[in-house]
Amino acid sequence: MSARSTTTTVAIVGGGPAGLMLSHLLSCNGIDSTVIDTRTRAEIEQTVRAGILERDSVRLLVDGGVSDRVLREGDEHRGISLGFGGADHRVDLHGLTGASVWLYPQTDVFVDLATARERDGGDVRFGVTDTAVVDATSERPGIRFVDSDGVATEIRCEVLVGADGSHGVCRQAIPDTLRRDYFREYPFAWFGILCQAPPSAPELIYNHSEHGFALISQRTTEVQRMYFQCDPGEDVDAWSDDRIWTELGKRVGANGYTLAEGPVTSKTVLRFRSFVCEPMRYGRLVLAGDAAHTVPPTGAKGLNLALADTRVLAECIERFLRRREANALDEYTDRALARVWKAQHFSYWMTTMLHTLPEATPFDVRRQVGELNSVVSSTAGSTYLAEAYTGWPTA
Amino acid sequence: MSARSTTTTVAIVGGGPAGLMLSHLLSCNGIDSTVIDTRTRAEIEQTVRAGILERDSVRLLVDGGVSDRVLREGDEHRGISLGFGGADHRVDLHGLTGASVWLYPQTDVFVDLATARERDGGDVRFGVTDTAVVDATSERPGIRFVDSDGVATEIRCEVLVGADGSHGVCRQAIPDTLRRDYFREYPFAWFGILCQAPPSAPELIYNHSEHGFALISQRTTEVQRMYFQCDPGEDVDAWSDDRIWTELGKRVGANGYTLAEGPVTSKTVLRFRSFVCEPMRYGRLVLAGDAAHTVPPTGAKGLNLALADTRVLAECIERFLRRREANALDEYTDRALARVWKAQHFSYWMTTMLHTLPEATPFDVRRQVGELNSVVSSTAGSTYLAEAYTGWPTA
Repeated sequence: MSARSTTTTVAIVGGGPAGLMLSHLLSCNGIDSTVIDTRTRAEIEQTVRAGILERDSVRLLVDGGVSDRVLREGDEHRGISLGFGGADHRVDLHGLTGASVWLYPQTDVFVDLATARERDGGDVRFGVTDTAVVDATSERPGIRFVDSDGVATEIRCEVLVGADGSHGVCRQAIPDTLRRDYFREYPFAWFGILCQAPPSAPELIYNHSEHGFALISQRTTEVQRMYFQCDPGEDVDAWSDDRIWTELGKRVGANGYTLAEGPVTSKTVLRFRSFVCEPMRYGRLVLAGDAAHTVPPTGAKGLNLALADTRVLAECIERFLRRREANALDEYTDRALARVWKAQHFSYWMTTMLHTLPEATPFDVRRQVGELNSVVSSTAGSTYLAEAYTGWPTA
Repeated sequence: MSARSTTTTVAIVGGGPAGLMLSHLLSCNGIDSTVIDTRTRAEIEQTVRAGILERDSVRLLVDGGVSDRVLREGDEHRGISLGFGGADHRVDLHGLTGASVWLYPQTDVFVDLATARERDGGDVRFGVTDTAVVDATSERPGIRFVDSDGVATEIRCEVLVGADGSHGVCRQAIPDTLRRDYFREYPFAWFGILCQAPPSAPELIYNHSEHGFALISQRTTEVQRMYFQCDPGEDVDAWSDDRIWTELGKRVGANGYTLAEGPVTSKTVLRFRSFVCEPMRYGRLVLAGDAAHTVPPTGAKGLNLALADTRVLAECIERFLRRREANALDEYTDRALARVWKAQHFSYWMTTMLHTLPEATPFDVRRQVGELNSVVSSTAGSTYLAEAYTGWPTA
């Protein structure tokens, strides 16, 4: 029954990019932290996840000394294309905003962060079980868990951070009466594939078509990633390579693109949901990343929002602990949520502008093309989209 | 049975702003036309209709020698306000785009146009009955009607223009098989009032609130116009002055505005619908204005679209007749529709960004505020909105 008891300044539940980045940033400020995750490091490294990094996400990795690999192995994309109405319409992100995005998988961001934390002697414990939040309301909250060696452990801290994803335990520690969950489901999903083929295009191409949405993206010189809108209940086994390429070809071909085809090595259905928990703070417990919010994948805001959270949170924790600014954690929730709701809107906008809703009338499809034409024919409209895509400055 | 037969170069069905403006522009090019309308001039003049004129609509009136009254009696508005999240957010239309809009009722636009046509000896016949399109597919189409003196008349022409509104006869002359109607209804309407009171604000204020949309607008120094979102089936008789002011006050008060109240002199429910007929040409029959398209009132695009149609159509008719460019009327439909679909999107955007949909979840309302914040906090976003509001350049 007796647990090993220790203390840390900041306990962080969740060792994904948000938890590790926060731990790293705190460490740069001389604030110690302990990170726990129920997954093993190998498990996380083996989960293939795509990624488009905003300019400031790349800066956070590079300037923070976490990764120069993103600059060497990531691909800078200075534009995206919107395919609609039978033609290609490039949005010159860099020309319009001075900023680019980087194609760099989330899995690699994790590897870089885990390596940096190890290098710097960070306390990161993977493969724990039975995680529970303790005394969330008190001045000395904590977490209990069983570590990977089977030792029951309790860690008390000054600030407890829930970076444990959308199904984590930390959000649940905020009483229902004090927390409001905002939620939206979408009546479609993405059918995502990995394939062995050369790139079909140098930059991402978001396709609107009468057959539904399709996204041409890239991964390496030999492996590509593609997505197309599908029913949320779609069965991947019903899709042969031929059927996949025919469907993708129809959707992108309508806009004049051709695909470099190759064997499909992975097929998954990605559900679309939007979620926000308000506030992102309860006493000395704060939430970051997917623990507090989820966005649909159109626009690639998920990972970037998580990293933006940590940047604001590291600053607010430092002011809360060092300068005894009692309301610094409240400020975190306000500043983070302002960005979250802009990102929720942007993700919804990109989603609804480009996908075919099941209930869409011919009017709605034509109106979408009217919107896409409005955006690409206006420097202001293109800039508005490009600003959001490359990431708003940190508030 | 025998009808008085005459000819004209361009026969125009509909003597509202679109028909009269087209007749005026053709006359400036030395092309004669005859305009007929089933309403009397007095009937049209007594129909109170609001109006916000885009910069190029004002130019068309002023530079075309139709009206300098718009500059003397109309009010230049250099901005609009978006009220949301408890505060006022002004969009500086003029600062962002160099363009303003003018508050000038549609009724006055009609009066100016009818006066100008009369002054210039234009052939405009109000109060006709039994209008019918004749031989729409032929090289010499025409119209039949009974004039206000009871004389049956047939006019043959080289080009027949349907500017006869959304319920007119001309669109019906295009066979269903060659015409596609795009349609959308909205699950709300506007409750519009006129009241005797001084202006509550110098510029229009579009209010988003948890109680629904409300628009503060103006008319003269003594008479004001206000609107608030209501159910499409709303009964105006169920609304006393007190109830109206309470409802308006709640919605605009949430954003910090106060209303100058006064006796309500008119109450109407305006239905919301979007409609587009494609193409806008069938042989030598072309459609203009509401005969081809309807937009919901948010964003005030209806009259402006009609005037933009006439500007392009006058040019295309001139090239069709004088320079024998056979495809000039096809060009009209393509150019006009490109603007129409941008306007349809803009009207839909303003509508859905600001109104509360019956099925809206708390997520949706928060997302709207996220969007409104994105627009007003970005120069590009505000400019994109301001460009649309003040009117795109004529393509």
